[in-house]
Amino acid sequence: MREHTERIRIGFADTDSTGRVYFPSYIRWIDNTMIELLRDVGVVFSPSGEVKLDGNPTGLTLVIGEYHCRMEVPSTYDEAVTVRAYVREVRRRVIVTEGFIIRPEDDTILAHGTITYVCVNISTGRSAEIPAEIIARLS
Amino acid sequence: MREHTERIRIGFADTDSTGRVYFPSYIRWIDNTMIELLRDVGVVFSPSGEVKLDGNPTGLTLVIGEYHCRMEVPSTYDEAVTVRAYVREVRRRVIVTEGFIIRPEDDTILAHGTITYVCVNISTGRSAEIPAEIIARLS
Amino acid sequence: MREHTERIRIGFADTDSTGRVYFPSYIRWIDNTMIELLRDVGVVFSPSGEVKLDGNPTGLTLVIGEYHCRMEVPSTYDEAVTVRAYVREVRRRVIVTEGFIIRPEDDTILAHGTITYVCVNISTGRSAEIPAEIIARLS
Amino acid sequence: MREHTERIRIGFADTDSTGRVYFPSYIRWIDNTMIELLRDVGVVFSPSGEVKLDGNPTGLTLVIGEYHCRMEVPSTYDEAVTVRAYVREVRRRVIVTEGFIIRPEDDTILAHGTITYVCVNISTGRSAEIPAEIIARLS
Repeated sequence: MREHTERIRIGFADTDSTGRVYFPSYIRWIDNTMIELLRDVGVVFSPSGEVKLDGNPTGLTLVIGEYHCRMEVPSTYDEAVTVRAYVREVRRRVIVTEGFIIRPEDDTILAHGTITYVCVNISTGRSAEIPAEIIARLS
Repeated sequence: MREHTERIRIGFADTDSTGRVYFPSYIRWIDNTMIELLRDVGVVFSPSGEVKLDGNPTGLTLVIGEYHCRMEVPSTYDEAVTVRAYVREVRRRVIVTEGFIIRPEDDTILAHGTITYVCVNISTGRSAEIPAEIIARLS
Repeated sequence: MREHTERIRIGFADTDSTGRVYFPSYIRWIDNTMIELLRDVGVVFSPSGEVKLDGNPTGLTLVIGEYHCRMEVPSTYDEAVTVRAYVREVRRRVIVTEGFIIRPEDDTILAHGTITYVCVNISTGRSAEIPAEIIARLS
Repeated sequence: MREHTERIRIGFADTDSTGRVYFPSYIRWIDNTMIELLRDVGVVFSPSGEVKLDGNPTGLTLVIGEYHCRMEVPSTYDEAVTVRAYVREVRRRVIVTEGFIIRPEDDTILAHGTITYVCVNISTGRSAEIPAEIIARLS
């Protein structure tokens, strides 16, 4: 399955007064990395969330239905970490992504999480089938 | 001129790893307080930013054109601060708000700032005159 | 088990350009509500994260080990929602909280999630037993 | 005077439900770019905010005393913008940075702002002179 890696320099905005990363930052990084993975295969969101495939509107969006994150090792300001996300599963209406926040010096997994994206028809607001072309490109 | 006061409990999300409030939090609090001041006089934003007056759409929005903030005394997690905003000036197309972040125990001003809101016609995207009724209510 | 309810007015900072709540906001609200639940029983965090019990430092902190969130119904700017969190489980070193984001008009559950807090000794950085007094107060 | 340029891809977290960038994002980007400018000359912050010069602690920090931002042209999700910051002025205890958010396709200035950093002695909490070596490197 497709994967994508981003390098993140942890900024002050990602941290809190305990001196560590503020916990929701991790899942945000995984979502951002998935967005870049989708871009790699020609799937880009418009500002309203509509999925464009090779620049063409699809009438569909991918909304986050569920997310989960587990922190293993604390991290903090100014660390340069690697975020690696891959497509763990593609179902007819759902894409499940798993992501890892990794300290590149020693490959320690600092945190990992999963995000479930649900395909939704923008007009009806109901779940919809993911276009076969997108499924093919993610495989 | 109208004013409004909110009480904010500083949360971890408002801070950073230096142990203090992360600097953009202050101007966000002032904007939030101005939004409540506007609500007091019947002006409420829809999610898209359109201004509703007494629940009626106006075809107008108020966008932030400029902001300024000055920090005087550091503040940190769990402090309960007062945010007081008032309308400093209303021009034909512009509202200027000033806000103060105050430690209520001794009235110390921790930070203060100004935000300039510009009235924009949503259809044309150009600046527009603020309805007289809104100006009257803010005076 | 203890529970606590907060009322949140969804602000622009909680949303994104899709017109809906930005997904990590939900779990942040649940954490904030748990922080208020702990305050109800005399447990307050210092800025550094140290747990104070009735104002006395304990040498302990509670760090988030894991979180999970599921969105059921979209919500957006300016909705006034209720966040209800309760202590689902207290183990020797772990507290599990469950939270619900509720539309109060019709009690619709918009989202729900769980957060696992792990008690850590600040000096050693290792997990530690939660003081019996805190366990008693949460029961 | 020194300058530094970063390229930012606007993410959902930077936007709000009006479909545009949430206003405090701009000043955050300028601060982040100044942090990279400082890194270019060997000045790096520790998580607590202490300034390290070539890796050596200085007992000093740089805190933001004031910021100002003006938005000229709206921007939104997924735009790849350039953030250019330069040192506008170095005084004995103060560094003033100016930053520009630019659309690279046509060099349009979308927003610009200034941030004033004040040098503070960490032990005393009082303003302090910026080390001559740092001043020299910023010139």
